[in-house]
Amino acid sequence: MASIFTKIIKGEIPSYKVAEDENYYAFLDINPLTKGHTLVIPKKEVDYLFDLDEETYEGLFRFARKVGAAIEKHIPCKRLGLVAYGLDVPHVHLHLIPLHGVGNEINFSKDKVKLSEEEFKSIAGAIHQKFTEI
Amino acid sequence: MASIFTKIIKGEIPSYKVAEDENYYAFLDINPLTKGHTLVIPKKEVDYLFDLDEETYEGLFRFARKVGAAIEKHIPCKRLGLVAYGLDVPHVHLHLIPLHGVGNEINFSKDKVKLSEEEFKSIAGAIHQKFTEI
Repeated sequence: MASIFTKIIKGEIPSYKVAEDENYYAFLDINPLTKGHTLVIPKKEVDYLFDLDEETYEGLFRFARKVGAAIEKHIPCKRLGLVAYGLDVPHVHLHLIPLHGVGNEINFSKDKVKLSEEEFKSIAGAIHQKFTEI
Repeated sequence: MASIFTKIIKGEIPSYKVAEDENYYAFLDINPLTKGHTLVIPKKEVDYLFDLDEETYEGLFRFARKVGAAIEKHIPCKRLGLVAYGLDVPHVHLHLIPLHGVGNEINFSKDKVKLSEEEFKSIAGAIHQKFTEI
């Protein structure tokens, strides 16, 4: 069965897309740890990061770097955290998380930021615009 | 001033080394979230992951993949988490953290695993051995 992320890539499930190319896709996490929290995924459906073939693995980090630059151009933050964790959805995903240097910001158990649909759309649109300019 | 990690690379501060090549170095985190928790760093002293030049950035993830394979050959776990966070030491470091799928394992505020010097040495030696065999 296709993963939820494959359905997102295909447009069968809606997402707040921030970037896409032939092999990769990036969209806002709908349960963000901080505003601008983005997921970066390969279109190839593989469960575990270190099981990706070398080319897809390396391309994923190249793509994430470019997405990260776009996020940083729109979201004020000290830097981005990068996390591959993935015991939830069996499809590789990198979290890019804007960090502000306040407290324990990388903790997936803590309360998530609540944003309206309008806010998600506005953030995704702005990051996407920055991505196209890089 | 040289970062604490640069001093570790130069051997001025001891570490439980698990892998090294011309441009990268990996050693056990002495405050591990789980047994086998490893830090992977570029020898080039740069504060922020996304400020690394492209070649060093991509090489870091290639090296981390190989270190990860060595860790997985020695430490029983479901998979490795990968985290770049780094608001503590101003020298890029990737955390490779063996995950067991129990609770919230990526949380830098939680109590760390206590290991004796003998245990650290034994783990580092075993991972290093696996690394040389890859």
